[in-house]
Amino acid sequence: MRVSVIGASTPTESGIDTARELGRVLGRRGHTVVCGGLGGVMEAVCEGARDADGHTIGILPGEDRDAANEYVETAIATGMGHARNALVVMNGDAAIAVEGSGGTLSEVGFASVYDRPIAGLDAPDAPHVEAVETPDGAVDYVEDATS
Amino acid sequence: MRVSVIGASTPTESGIDTARELGRVLGRRGHTVVCGGLGGVMEAVCEGARDADGHTIGILPGEDRDAANEYVETAIATGMGHARNALVVMNGDAAIAVEGSGGTLSEVGFASVYDRPIAGLDAPDAPHVEAVETPDGAVDYVEDATS
Amino acid sequence: MRVSVIGASTPTESGIDTARELGRVLGRRGHTVVCGGLGGVMEAVCEGARDADGHTIGILPGEDRDAANEYVETAIATGMGHARNALVVMNGDAAIAVEGSGGTLSEVGFASVYDRPIAGLDAPDAPHVEAVETPDGAVDYVEDATS
Amino acid sequence: MRVSVIGASTPTESGIDTARELGRVLGRRGHTVVCGGLGGVMEAVCEGARDADGHTIGILPGEDRDAANEYVETAIATGMGHARNALVVMNGDAAIAVEGSGGTLSEVGFASVYDRPIAGLDAPDAPHVEAVETPDGAVDYVEDATS
Repeated sequence: MRVSVIGASTPTESGIDTARELGRVLGRRGHTVVCGGLGGVMEAVCEGARDADGHTIGILPGEDRDAANEYVETAIATGMGHARNALVVMNGDAAIAVEGSGGTLSEVGFASVYDRPIAGLDAPDAPHVEAVETPDGAVDYVEDATS
Repeated sequence: MRVSVIGASTPTESGIDTARELGRVLGRRGHTVVCGGLGGVMEAVCEGARDADGHTIGILPGEDRDAANEYVETAIATGMGHARNALVVMNGDAAIAVEGSGGTLSEVGFASVYDRPIAGLDAPDAPHVEAVETPDGAVDYVEDATS
Repeated sequence: MRVSVIGASTPTESGIDTARELGRVLGRRGHTVVCGGLGGVMEAVCEGARDADGHTIGILPGEDRDAANEYVETAIATGMGHARNALVVMNGDAAIAVEGSGGTLSEVGFASVYDRPIAGLDAPDAPHVEAVETPDGAVDYVEDATS
Repeated sequence: MRVSVIGASTPTESGIDTARELGRVLGRRGHTVVCGGLGGVMEAVCEGARDADGHTIGILPGEDRDAANEYVETAIATGMGHARNALVVMNGDAAIAVEGSGGTLSEVGFASVYDRPIAGLDAPDAPHVEAVETPDGAVDYVEDATS
């Protein structure tokens, strides 16, 4: 399935490691990463996914798809700015958040709006978010919730 | 100034009363209400604002501006669905939330993204939201925060 | 009704005069101008409309509503870039084009998509566009086509 | 490169054949098809591209990516309605139109806005469109224009 990975654009080092490992788990289990296509958690999760031969889609805020990080296979430019956050969530079957602040919170809200299960790794606390401890636990959760 | 009022589309009765009173306060103080244009908190705040001769703008998810509640003076159709939540926040100078769940949470996130101060009346708890007790307190807060 | 006025952002002097006169006719006849909110035809038509005490709405490509020309009464920021052209047309009951090139052509296409009658004053030639000679003729045409 | 293929959703039989053959040419030459993801020209060009082992991206108007035709490899839901036409053009390096009416005209306009060369096969006549006779001629034209 497709999993939207959302999170901080300037994460902690630990967040980077978590996102990269999350990408590897998703890739190994045959899931495609959908993300915002830029840096931080978005880049780390794509790097991890590509390490594991997984697929990656980046839905960018700007008009230029060359702004995508180098691990994005399919870059989609939107020119919509932050409103593209809705599309990042809409294009996954479930979501996983890694750290993050305002932008991530908007995506957590959209996960509720579009009825996507969402797991959180050190993510903003919100009613709809299942707090998990590890990347494997996050993927277990979204696999179960969509099966 | 313009104040984006966000919140539940199916609020409690108390939430309806709060939103209507908030509209009156905003109208009396010369502020324009920006909202999502539909029912619940959106309709009640517009009704209150119009009671006080205030102005109201409704930014709608669909393509048909006739979907706006009857208290919207200027209806803007977007055809963007829930992604229009970004525009509701972007078009205010500050935001006030009344109750609400997922859609409101997405707007709380955008308030942070677009750097709009935001007050909450029984609103989703989030780091960026100043919890206040009354409509007057909410408007006081956003007036102070933008001055 | 609302009339979307579309056209060149760098019109000829004659185009400026035409757009300003068109704004006056629309204002005198009680119609509200919807436009893209920026310069050229957009500014001239708003200036004319305000001269005649008409109302003006500007739907902007960027996130900052201060980018609107000074004759826009209600500025709506979208942050969607050129995709906002769809919203300019969607928010009128009919459209009138004054000169224009690519952006205007996209709006002419949307007028067909959203089934809005459209009159053209030195506008791009397209099947859906009724070529007219004068601002009064343009407003006559869209009034008849929507009655 | 990526080529946006735009055109009629209810084409003539000849238009279907042209679009399918265009897809084959694009696939054989290693280009990726970007389209609106639905039926008519969009489906035929994707079918042709897949026949030739080319890649296909469908940028959909609705929120459900299952609405994509069966030859779309990567479906992107937007929930933006017809405003997604801007994204279809933005995400290609060049465009080719096959027949089409209003929606296609909006995309022809965006091709000009985003400065994408565009070839037309029985497409709406517009200043920016290079009329060509065959799918091979269309691909020759956009390859030359972007080299």
